Amino acid sequence: MVAIRMKHTKILITGANGFTGQHACNYFSDTGMEVTATVRNTKARLSNSIQKITCDLTQRDQIGQMLQKVVPDYVLHLAGRNAVSNSWDEPVSFIETNMMSTIYLLDALRRMKDCRVLVVGSMLDFPLIDSPKPPHPYSLSKTLQVAAAQSWGHLFGQEVMVAKPVNLIGPGYSNGVCGLLAKKIVEQERGTESKPFRLSSLNEERDFLDVRDAVKAYFKILRDGIAGKVYPIGSGQNRSLGEVIDTFQQMLAKKLIYEVGDSIQPFPPQLIDPSLMKTLDWQPSIRFETSLRDVLNFYRAEVAQ
Amino acid sequence: MVAIRMKHTKILITGANGFTGQHACNYFSDTGMEVTATVRNTKARLSNSIQKITCDLTQRDQIGQMLQKVVPDYVLHLAGRNAVSNSWDEPVSFIETNMMSTIYLLDALRRMKDCRVLVVGSMLDFPLIDSPKPPHPYSLSKTLQVAAAQSWGHLFGQEVMVAKPVNLIGPGYSNGVCGLLAKKIVEQERGTESKPFRLSSLNEERDFLDVRDAVKAYFKILRDGIAGKVYPIGSGQNRSLGEVIDTFQQMLAKKLIYEVGDSIQPFPPQLIDPSLMKTLDWQPSIRFETSLRDVLNFYRAEVAQ
Repeated sequence: MVAIRMKHTKILITGANGFTGQHACNYFSDTGMEVTATVRNTKARLSNSIQKITCDLTQRDQIGQMLQKVVPDYVLHLAGRNAVSNSWDEPVSFIETNMMSTIYLLDALRRMKDCRVLVVGSMLDFPLIDSPKPPHPYSLSKTLQVAAAQSWGHLFGQEVMVAKPVNLIGPGYSNGVCGLLAKKIVEQERGTESKPFRLSSLNEERDFLDVRDAVKAYFKILRDGIAGKVYPIGSGQNRSLGEVIDTFQQMLAKKLIYEVGDSIQPFPPQLIDPSLMKTLDWQPSIRFETSLRDVLNFYRAEVAQ
Repeated sequence: MVAIRMKHTKILITGANGFTGQHACNYFSDTGMEVTATVRNTKARLSNSIQKITCDLTQRDQIGQMLQKVVPDYVLHLAGRNAVSNSWDEPVSFIETNMMSTIYLLDALRRMKDCRVLVVGSMLDFPLIDSPKPPHPYSLSKTLQVAAAQSWGHLFGQEVMVAKPVNLIGPGYSNGVCGLLAKKIVEQERGTESKPFRLSSLNEERDFLDVRDAVKAYFKILRDGIAGKVYPIGSGQNRSLGEVIDTFQQMLAKKLIYEVGDSIQPFPPQLIDPSLMKTLDWQPSIRFETSLRDVLNFYRAEVAQ
């Protein structure tokens, strides 16, 4: 399935039980790598080829002990808190989980054999200029995480790369707008939900990328990326929420019921420059319509169970 | 002594037992403010007018409890680790102590009455650009501290100012070059030290400011500074280490014995722009020669005891 096999190399994937983490575990396992996944508790559902190890990444001691057992060649650091609205209630926890955990991880790794680390940041970061103005504490936590990770790599000569993905979509549980909308569609199809879905606006634009494409990008960065670099990962195309609605509608027998708010997006997100990822021979391969169909079919199958 | 009195206002000073902290406690107490000083342990030597409260600022719970007792109107946050060479051995501790403690402090304060906070950063920070290259972990910890503090103030509407002082000198124990040199001079005067003092270079330049002038600047920023702003605090004049030696020499009966290394400073530190502090009606008032004389006399008195 994957052209390049990487047998006998070990990768540690943090946040393995999340939306991206589950795809990453399967993909990296298919490359022939030995995959160890950090999970919060042993109930996490992962395929049998993945070794699970429990670790609370906000606890420095636990990270050190965990890494002594795993001794990875690669680390894909996906773990973190990412619900923007919750970050207003627990800003300290977001900074501890997103930033300090990354530092604990890199610090424990610097005393071990060479290991290439990919820290997954966020497009929702902000510029750390003279008067920094983050839009929310989540943004602050991810901005600090990336600045700290890059700086740490420079200070201690560790191979740390950063990926900044756009909105990831695809099969699996996700709190992104496409996932939430698909869930609502399935509820409407089954007649279990009567309230219409509420969208902030039809004009709001975002860059959506299939999570399976993102995971392939992570693989390429881990293998061939340049230490210290930040790799933006996206489709390079902004789509409006109206287009999301229209695309779903074409797959449905009935008219989708939704409401539209009057939220105004000050300006669409800056388009991803695809040139850096092209140097790693990566580009998106899954069509937007395919991603949305897979999201929908995932929720149809889940609800049917 | 101090023109403006501020009776019945409470200030909390963290790191009160440090070089700057001791001067700050006395100065703010003289303004009529009620000063509470956080100390690590109750053995800390502070004047009787200062209330002491023990608190480990890396422990979030302790900070919350401490602030509930003090309920300050102002906070001067001086606490932190600042020995550059140690930061290579304990980079995580530097980030926890310098950055996370600041976040814990600001978070606890946001649930209380309005409080103006001055976070004391460092001139040894670095620009958080695309490829950040801090010179040492101390620099990273202070850069993250300032970025986090300013961002936090913006997010939660708290009045957070930042001061960035240059090399502070003056009476009191300090690990700066002037303090170390004065200590050596006194040892040479008393014949208890035979090895010459070793300077990295005579040409290396730094901006030295008297710690008592810095403390006055902190007072003005706390009272009148604009939230979110960074205030550089310095004399606005670079002096070479050769000038430091010459100035000390003029106060001494005997010839000062020292060795000079061949360290090359790539470029002198950027000169402080005095205009921002002039808007707060502050400028340095203590002559360089006076500062060095006071440093020397401090060590002479200490050794004589």
